Parts: sequence; structure tokens; C-alpha cells
Amino acid sequence: MRLTAPVVLPCDERCSVLRDAVVDVDGAGRIGYVGPSVWAPPAPGPELALTGILAPGLVNTHAHTAMTALRGLGGDLPLMRWLTEVIWPAEARIDAEDVRVGMLVGALEMLGAGITTSVEMYFLSDAVVDAVLAAGSRAVVTPGIIAVPGWDRLGTWQQMLDGISRWIDADGIRFGPGERIELGYGPHAAYTLPAEALAAAGAAARERGALLHIHVAETTGEDTAIREQHGSVPLLLERLGVLGSDDSGRGARVLAAHAVHLSDTDIAVLARYHAGVAHCPGSNSKLASGIARLVDLRAAGIAVGLGTDGPASHDDLNLWDDVRLAARLARLSTGDAAALTAAQALLMATRGGAAAIGRDDLGTVRPGAWADLVHIGADDPAFAAGLDVPDGQLLANLVWAAGARAVRDVWVAGERVLHDGVPTRVDPAEAHAALRSRVTRITGP
Amino acid sequence: MRLTAPVVLPCDERCSVLRDAVVDVDGAGRIGYVGPSVWAPPAPGPELALTGILAPGLVNTHAHTAMTALRGLGGDLPLMRWLTEVIWPAEARIDAEDVRVGMLVGALEMLGAGITTSVEMYFLSDAVVDAVLAAGSRAVVTPGIIAVPGWDRLGTWQQMLDGISRWIDADGIRFGPGERIELGYGPHAAYTLPAEALAAAGAAARERGALLHIHVAETTGEDTAIREQHGSVPLLLERLGVLGSDDSGRGARVLAAHAVHLSDTDIAVLARYHAGVAHCPGSNSKLASGIARLVDLRAAGIAVGLGTDGPASHDDLNLWDDVRLAARLARLSTGDAAALTAAQALLMATRGGAAAIGRDDLGTVRPGAWADLVHIGADDPAFAAGLDVPDGQLLANLVWAAGARAVRDVWVAGERVLHDGVPTRVDPAEAHAALRSRVTRITGP
Repeated sequence: MRLTAPVVLPCDERCSVLRDAVVDVDGAGRIGYVGPSVWAPPAPGPELALTGILAPGLVNTHAHTAMTALRGLGGDLPLMRWLTEVIWPAEARIDAEDVRVGMLVGALEMLGAGITTSVEMYFLSDAVVDAVLAAGSRAVVTPGIIAVPGWDRLGTWQQMLDGISRWIDADGIRFGPGERIELGYGPHAAYTLPAEALAAAGAAARERGALLHIHVAETTGEDTAIREQHGSVPLLLERLGVLGSDDSGRGARVLAAHAVHLSDTDIAVLARYHAGVAHCPGSNSKLASGIARLVDLRAAGIAVGLGTDGPASHDDLNLWDDVRLAARLARLSTGDAAALTAAQALLMATRGGAAAIGRDDLGTVRPGAWADLVHIGADDPAFAAGLDVPDGQLLANLVWAAGARAVRDVWVAGERVLHDGVPTRVDPAEAHAALRSRVTRITGP
Repeated sequence: MRLTAPVVLPCDERCSVLRDAVVDVDGAGRIGYVGPSVWAPPAPGPELALTGILAPGLVNTHAHTAMTALRGLGGDLPLMRWLTEVIWPAEARIDAEDVRVGMLVGALEMLGAGITTSVEMYFLSDAVVDAVLAAGSRAVVTPGIIAVPGWDRLGTWQQMLDGISRWIDADGIRFGPGERIELGYGPHAAYTLPAEALAAAGAAARERGALLHIHVAETTGEDTAIREQHGSVPLLLERLGVLGSDDSGRGARVLAAHAVHLSDTDIAVLARYHAGVAHCPGSNSKLASGIARLVDLRAAGIAVGLGTDGPASHDDLNLWDDVRLAARLARLSTGDAAALTAAQALLMATRGGAAAIGRDDLGTVRPGAWADLVHIGADDPAFAAGLDVPDGQLLANLVWAAGARAVRDVWVAGERVLHDGVPTRVDPAEAHAALRSRVTRITGP
């Protein structure tokens, strides 16, 4: 298949803007030639002429998407009260079918916003996988491991951990059509797990080359307690070997979600071990958790992606909000209107997110990468002045004005899963109806 | 006409949620009965059964909407460099037809986001009025008055001021079908006008009962200069009589846009004179201007609305972004996740905006108010759990997850000007094409 478009954004390191360009997709769903039409080889198959901007699908590096049934619950509470008084009691009623339907609704919403990959931490993860495969999106599924009262209904942390290891050993790290699923480990946080559980999860993940995805220093409350006991979460993870068995971080793939309350030392530790960070400005601002030190994290060379967090703490699943919010908060907290440019913010949501989870075959349009693509419509008012404006203005219009509302078509592994704004595999109205039939039991009195 | 809906949000002071309700609209475009279906009088005409949420149109209290042709220009610059190096030189090339077309594109975009009223400060304002009347939206048009090099091509500040007074004296404060246009005065700022111009504009506005709309303390740079010379902008405006001829503010309608850098004294002065504030968190964060003291402004009893600012500094014209951003920044700057609730943020964008400009017949659904209404679709994923959730959850889902993307239909003065997402009066594609044909001359080399 060959896609042509007046503008292709490969989301390479310099955020190039290719005019009158071509993207070829091979039969396996990977990208072949990318570049100007005039230099293109013979088309590898049918051609589709797009009229807007073709870009890589967005990578949502931190999500609990299946929580769509809980959206809007306790929306004006800080994190700890919100979790313990509202969310965890509701989650105690959730079964596998609830998770499947909740994830399906969220996966369709994300496709509508041009998000093709999400990193999911939840429980009953078989159901998460089923929903992702049904919607046709892509996910790195890191089943949660947690040891707090109430959650023992799902087993001990050791059982949760072993379950993930057995799953990976049976199905492999990546599987499904177009390798749509990657498995990893989701130890919830240092404040919800004993040190030995963190160490064991780190060892199991390293052994299998799997991603380890953990909440780090999200709010002052939990973070202060950990600091008093262990120095800090990054220092604890270092001491336990979670960040890597030697200080290059070799063999470890660690994703620190939120990472709001970090000292200079913490940032240096994460950088030294090549840990990635999922920056979640939407969730962190809604819950008044704080502003992560984005500019410092980037200056330290840390791969930083963006995450929506769950639909009950953000609350939409529109990563473009976080793209803009990351730039806004970076600018406000430094007083510098160039602290994060439109191009830099866009790259964080694409190749940056992929880098944060140790992938270079997502979030970019280059030969060999997965053909996860988004077509942005030129008819959006953001582009009323046309696509023919200078590159910087075009990127600004995409990031600051168009975003999710302009997403028209989405491909995952070369398959069109959104066509003119409508999911091709599942009827959203049916998915919503299915969720509606389940929600009273979960959140009702 | 009678509209029925499973949910009506009148945006009254307590943000009531009416279930299975009715909104009647009279032949003049004003609202009649509002309330539960069971208590409704006989229908005054044809009935339309809506399936989603019916709410008042949003009030955008600070905009320079005609700048759509300049969208995305200089997006990574701070305010003063952005104005003097990029925007003002481009604006020197703009003619009346550019303004008309630019405003038309923006008015259609705002209708698509459910914004029915905007407060517009720009020049060549006849063209702004023409575009508003063509789109069928509503605007308070406050032509700019400015005295800086380059702008004298439009005349002296005295000529600009007199032009507004003559216009009001000829056409009245409000005119057009459904009183779609209100005229007011737009003295640009204390740093771009001599004190005598501010005083004269204040006197002319008071004399006519017109709104006076002025930029106040947007950035540290301009604000520091004024503070050194005059104490502060609010103190200067007080001394010049702009805020009112006695210290109750009686007879004066003043709208302070941005109002970022205010002392306790400044806030007390604005409160004492009953000045309104247009809070513009999107623009202020993008340009790194700072965070306005929203919680303190509200605590002082000041009527605060929300504004997008122009499409070249925000950059979309989606006030829902500002609704969320206002709550996010209030929460981050106070550390309190309840500093501004979803309901409070929604009211700021509706009745709060109307109050900030001294109107009580907009931004609320009550008998006698203008029938400026928005229908939010229940098919949006934000409402996947249904509309039948508790009131607080429904408001959270509307504010935090649905917003502009869920806007389906809009009425202004009882006339449907957006039908299932499509403007009824003007084809957006034609408006975009018209803008495109003009943009190279304005922003090109």
C-alpha cells in the first residue's frame, strides 16, 4: 500500500516536515519507503491519496484505560482520598468483562484521538488484551502488582508477579497480529509494595527483557514517607537493582510514571540508568499532585513520553491535551515561552514516548517501523490558512489548534482501524451500550 | 419552539442538573419556560426532542478572533517580542476584507465549540460585525484604541475613540437580529495609551453605559513599567475615574483582560468598583505570561469569566480548554484538588463570563434570557457510562472529558446556527478558502 499526502511528519529527531510525500507500507504492516514523491520507487500496491497531514500514531505512555466505567467519580479529590475512598472500593466490584468493555470503550476513544499505542497498567489483564485486539489498537500491557488491603482478593504480590512471568514465558514478550501486544510488569508503586516485591519484579523483568512500569513520586504524601524510609524512590529502585544490574542500566527497561517530586540526585539516577519517564501533566494538575520538572528531566537526557493516566483522573483520553499542557506548564514554571516548542512537544508524544518504553519501531515514520499512522484533516479550522504555510507555523497549528479534533484516519500495523473518524472494527455505540449495562453494579449505591 | 432533553443545565448559581426537562423559546429568540417536563405549560410551538445535554452557549470574554490568518505565527516567543516582531508587522498589512474573513472563520470555529458570545477587541470593527452577523453568532465588539508607532495609520487615539462614540450614538449599544451585536470601547492597555486617553475612554463609556475592555497586567515587563510610574494599572484606572465616578463603580462597566500580575491592593480595587475579569489561562501559559490569582479574584467577589485570547496566542478558539486549564492551574497553584470544581469551572465559562461583562441575559438558561443554547451529544465517549450517573459525575464528564468535541447543535437567539456539527449559514470550507486566498499577502515574505 502507498499513502501520499501533501505533508508527512516522520517525527524524526529534527521534526522534519516533508512536502508532497509518500509512505509505503509492506504486507507485514511495516513501513517501507518514506520521502518525497519525486524520489519514490514504484508503488508497492494500491495508492491512497490523502489530503491532510500524515504522522505517526501517538504513544500514550501511562494509562489505566479500562477505568472508563469510573470516569468522573470523585473528580475534586486529591490522589490518596480519591484512591482509597472512591476508586478502590468501586474497583473491588469490577470483573473481567467490565475490564474488557471498559478497555474497549477507551481504546476506541484513543484511536479517535490518534493514539495507536498505550502502556496499560491494570488488573484482569487478559481482558485488556482481548479489548485491544478487538479494537485493533496496540498496547504494552503491564499487569498491576500490588499489596494493599482489599487487593489481596487478586492474590499475593508473588502470585501476581509469577502470573506475568508465566504469561510471558508462554506467549512471548510480543504477540498478536502486527505484534499488537507487548507484555511487561506493572509493580504499582514503592508505597504499595514491599521492597522485596520491587526487587523480584525487577529481576523477573530484566531476565525477560520486559518493561517494568511503576508509579514514582506522584504526590508529596506518599513520596515523603518513602523519602524518610529509603532516601527516595529512585534511590530505592537503584539499591534494589530494579534500574539495572550495573550502573549503566544495561538490560533493564524501566518506565517511571508521573515522577513529579524528584530531587537533582533522583534525576541523575534515572538518567544514569537510562530509565524512561511518563510525564502526566493532565492527571498531575487535575489532582493537584504537582508539576514535574520536565525541562530538567529533558536536560538530563532522560527519554520522556506523555501519558494521560486513567480516564478517571484526566479525564479524557486525549493525549493532545497533554502535549499542550506539557508545553504550557514547562513555560509557566520557567518563565520561558520557548521552554518547550510545539515541535518538541509533538516529538514527546510520538518518538519520545516510544523511547521512554525502549522502543524505536513506534512513534516515528521510518523504514522498518510499524505502520501506525494518523491522518490529520486539512479541513480543520486550524489549517484555514492552508498547509502551505512555513514549517514552524504548520507545526504550531497542528499542536496548538488542531490536535484530536482533526484526526480523520488511523492505521495500526498497516490496517485502517479508523476511517473518516469512525472505528472500522467495533461500533462505538455498541461498546458504550455494553458499558452502560454494567456501570450501575460497579458505581451504584 | 420547545426543546426537550434528558438533561438541561441552566447554569444557575448552584449549577442545577435538571432531568427530563424542557426549554421553551419565544418568537423573539428569548427563553420562556425552563424546567421539568412534568410541570411544563402547553408547548408554544413545534417540539424538538434532543438526546443529550442542553446548556447555555459559552461566553468567551476576551478574544481577537479575526487573527485566524495569523494563527501559528511566532508561537514560541514571549508576548512583547511576539507582538512587536511578528504580529504587529503582519497586522499592518491587514485590510477590512481580511478582518471580515478572519473573523468569519473564527466565529464558525467558536460555534463548533459551543461558544455563542465573544468579546472582541480588534480594529476595522465594521468587518468584525459583518462577520458575526453572517455567521449568526453573537459578539460584544469593542474596537481597539491604541497609540503606538505603526498603528497611527488608523488615526490618533482620539479619532479611534470618537469613532466608537459616533457608532454607538448612531446605531445604539445593541443592534442586529436578536441583538447579536453590542458595542463597547477597547482601549488596548495602559502601556499603549496615554493616561488622558484612558480617562477619555472611561468617560465616553460611562456616559453611554458601554463596556470598557482593556488589557491589564498581562506580563511582568509592561506591568513593572506601569507600577513604577503609576502604582499599578488598577490604581491608575481608579485615579482616572475609569473604574467609576464614585467608589461603588456605579455606572461603569469595566472588563480587565488577563489581570495576571495583581497585588492584594489591586484585587481589592477591582472588587470595590465591581470590575469584571477575563481570565485567559491558555494564552497566559502559552506565552509564559504567568498564572492569574484566580482563587483570590473569586474570593474577593470579582465576576471572573474565561477568554481564549486571539487564535494566534492560544491557539485554538476552544474555551473548554480554558475551562479545564483554569481548574488545573488553580489546583496546582494552591495544592488543593478542590480549588475549582468542575461545576465552578463550567459556570465561569457561562454565567460568570456574562457577569464579567455586566450581562445577566446570556450564559444562563432562564426565562427572559436570550436562547443561546448548546446541545452536547450523549454519544460522546465521555458519556459512555450514560447520562444517568449522579449529577457530580455528569458535570465532571462534561467538563473534563467531553467539551468541544461533543458539541452537536447550537442556537443563537433561538436560531439554529449549528446543526449536527455543521454551521447552517456559511460553509466553513468556503470561508477557509477565502482566508487562504488572502493569507500569503499578510504573512508572506
